[in-house]
Amino acid sequence: MGLPAALTVIGEVRTGYASTEGTPIQAGLNRAERAVIEIAGPYREGLDGLAGFGYAWLLTWLDRPHEPGPPPLRLVPFLLRRQQRKVGVFATRSPRRVNPIGLSLIQILGVSGGQIEFAGVDLLDRTPVLDLKPYVARFDRPPGDGDPAGGWFDQVPMAERATPAGLGPGDPSEP
Amino acid sequence: MGLPAALTVIGEVRTGYASTEGTPIQAGLNRAERAVIEIAGPYREGLDGLAGFGYAWLLTWLDRPHEPGPPPLRLVPFLLRRQQRKVGVFATRSPRRVNPIGLSLIQILGVSGGQIEFAGVDLLDRTPVLDLKPYVARFDRPPGDGDPAGGWFDQVPMAERATPAGLGPGDPSEP
Repeated sequence: MGLPAALTVIGEVRTGYASTEGTPIQAGLNRAERAVIEIAGPYREGLDGLAGFGYAWLLTWLDRPHEPGPPPLRLVPFLLRRQQRKVGVFATRSPRRVNPIGLSLIQILGVSGGQIEFAGVDLLDRTPVLDLKPYVARFDRPPGDGDPAGGWFDQVPMAERATPAGLGPGDPSEP
Repeated sequence: MGLPAALTVIGEVRTGYASTEGTPIQAGLNRAERAVIEIAGPYREGLDGLAGFGYAWLLTWLDRPHEPGPPPLRLVPFLLRRQQRKVGVFATRSPRRVNPIGLSLIQILGVSGGQIEFAGVDLLDRTPVLDLKPYVARFDRPPGDGDPAGGWFDQVPMAERATPAGLGPGDPSEP
């Protein structure tokens, strides 16, 4: 079922990454690296107040999937490449999904003009930006002490600066 | 700048809320209430493994804005209605935004067939669902002890089950 509404690109992310296989898989595993978001002129007024937040959610359109073709509903996520284990796409953070909307937790370092300097880089250069939302602990942190159950992620090692290429070859059943 | 790609609706949220003004403003302020997501048949296979997670991100298309017309770049968020203070839309969690994509942190209570029972309700009945992503603490929790700076949210009270109607009238400068 399609939606009649269209998405609007409000800017783009500028990073040093040109290949999906060499791009860090998660901002949370690459928190030290810095990059810049360039917000297009017509949308800059919407940044007023963002500099007061430590972190924000960066919503992007993941326009260059690491495999061609329609996204499968069960797939081998990057972190399960060694096991070649498939799980449902909605139980993964795979960039290849029905609606390829990226969700990255970024640290806001500065907002000046239309430029947002941030830390936590997991995106290809020139990835289209759809939205920014401030991180609000009361809304975005599960209650209670300790981490909630993390499904299959709780069973795999997660190395800093992991990339798809470093995690093994992709799914051989894919074209 | 528009995107050539279209969004696909994968299901809908079923809640008891029919009016935006009476709908809780944030899942994190209404964590006890339960509701159901109904995933459409063609996408159910993608739920495999989701039940192993305590929490997930629910991405929705906020199809019924609380004010008509194009979204302003500076607006009075619900929590600043009393002060009638405007901030940039990208420094708010307002449902009225350039790309009205909702981001709700939900607690997964059960996944059965195409139904996801969850807790944490801040959506109108029949809101279109775009994506589900598992909550992974390593990716989604800012590092360090304590909460990061929360901008203007740090200066306002946030009551449980707050609704727009309970927070005062909307922006009188809006049509």
